[in-house]
Amino acid sequence: MNREAPNAGAVYAASLTPLDEALNINHERLSQHVRWLLANGCDGVALMGTTGEANSFSVGERKAAVEAVLDAGIAPDRLIVGTGCCAIPETVELTNHALKCGVHDVLMLPPFYYKEVSDEGIFAAFDQVMQHVGSRLCRIYLYHFPHMSAVPFSDDLVGRLLEAFPVAGMKDSSGDYAHMVRMVRMFPKLKVFTGTERYLLDVLKAGGAGCITATVNVTCRKASRLANAWHGAHATAIQEELTQVRTAIEQFPMIAALKSIMGQQSGDEYWYNMRPPNVPLSAVQAAALHTALRTCTI
Amino acid sequence: MNREAPNAGAVYAASLTPLDEALNINHERLSQHVRWLLANGCDGVALMGTTGEANSFSVGERKAAVEAVLDAGIAPDRLIVGTGCCAIPETVELTNHALKCGVHDVLMLPPFYYKEVSDEGIFAAFDQVMQHVGSRLCRIYLYHFPHMSAVPFSDDLVGRLLEAFPVAGMKDSSGDYAHMVRMVRMFPKLKVFTGTERYLLDVLKAGGAGCITATVNVTCRKASRLANAWHGAHATAIQEELTQVRTAIEQFPMIAALKSIMGQQSGDEYWYNMRPPNVPLSAVQAAALHTALRTCTI
Repeated sequence: MNREAPNAGAVYAASLTPLDEALNINHERLSQHVRWLLANGCDGVALMGTTGEANSFSVGERKAAVEAVLDAGIAPDRLIVGTGCCAIPETVELTNHALKCGVHDVLMLPPFYYKEVSDEGIFAAFDQVMQHVGSRLCRIYLYHFPHMSAVPFSDDLVGRLLEAFPVAGMKDSSGDYAHMVRMVRMFPKLKVFTGTERYLLDVLKAGGAGCITATVNVTCRKASRLANAWHGAHATAIQEELTQVRTAIEQFPMIAALKSIMGQQSGDEYWYNMRPPNVPLSAVQAAALHTALRTCTI
Repeated sequence: MNREAPNAGAVYAASLTPLDEALNINHERLSQHVRWLLANGCDGVALMGTTGEANSFSVGERKAAVEAVLDAGIAPDRLIVGTGCCAIPETVELTNHALKCGVHDVLMLPPFYYKEVSDEGIFAAFDQVMQHVGSRLCRIYLYHFPHMSAVPFSDDLVGRLLEAFPVAGMKDSSGDYAHMVRMVRMFPKLKVFTGTERYLLDVLKAGGAGCITATVNVTCRKASRLANAWHGAHATAIQEELTQVRTAIEQFPMIAALKSIMGQQSGDEYWYNMRPPNVPLSAVQAAALHTALRTCTI
């Protein structure tokens, strides 16, 4: 944490992953982006989350990306690495790899192919993973994203996982503020991060830890100001600005919209590259996005 | 095809994957099961589909299982291998591996992590895959399973894929008979396989190819009789028996229920093993299933 104020919230970007023209990860650009995020208000960066197109990359590509960022000099304690796959051996491999690289914070989706699985089944999956994870230094962040994974963590399951395993926190991408507050109240030990900075101020007031969000790729300075000053007189005004940006971006496919903004801001064409099934915004969408953003302060 | 009658339908089992106590694939048992299915009425076997718990295995485990079955003497032209992953490089790797092993029929899920992706995005994913697949001998079966993948193939997309790539057929696991008939009518070149033998007779009458189903793991002889004799006087009666079995099994988690039946029929404990997040039936569920099946003829 690099916050100035006591009780400051923590702001993490769920980093975008820049690709080259062949749609492979551009390690140099990724490292530059992570460095820029950390220099512009982020306490840390979540690599290989949904926004990072993690599930469009092979296990080998994911490991290579993490290594590249660390080789570029980013401190491992500034990273959370997404490691949750459908298959337990792949979650184990990515988690052990992160730990070997010195990254102790891992963001775990539940196995997400099979639907309507029981709490018992998801618990058993985490149990299997942790039986094969070599290090006791691992800190798990549960990645609750029902809309995308279609496999939610029930309240009861969160409690069981917290009791049995080194669960440190949750990225709550439900978009459901009531759920975030319930997590904070039910599980005082759980660091709850909202997955949308729409609720950053509210979650901090409720006792949550901060945010890990996609939009912070472009709003890191503003989100950081809010996290530092959320007790202050300007907090509501900053939150309103953040919410306005989020609202504008949410009208479009999120990852493509963020890459479009980065592309326009930087003038670098590579930002527009996306690996299918995700695709760049159309010219019409991009124009509409940039019109919508004109009334916002990023 | 080993059918006796002209215009006979094709029956494929979506094979279960037997596991050892450590929840790794038991290659010997898997090969035995595939051989048993082929000896008991199946025209072919789909390996590494949903029923085969494919997405609970690493790429390496999936490749090793296919090799083991082939090494056990199963003819490659009797197999369809599931190769569709979230990440294009993994779909490419599994597809090229199947082709190298002499298996030309591959069952492809669309990339299934990202939701509400565009037809354009799914098309682009298939395009990327096929650009990297080495062989022109590949025959793609689209795996349409909206309930599990949460990424359906739209009618329009099926037409585009059929035109652009060597798409031979579809496993239609929508459970929606109207969809199956629409596929048959809209796309005469597409071999449409129902994913539930509840509609086997209807799909054959409508001009479909047959079935690729989970339940055929235990109903292969009966499904085969129907596929051979679907023009005959007894077809409706056989269909009713198949539907009755399917209805009984569908009340329970499908894969666990089928493994429970196999375990009870064979007396072999290993059949009960499942890799999380899937878990075996509870004792209460197993008892209820076997009670329900007592009124059926399998």
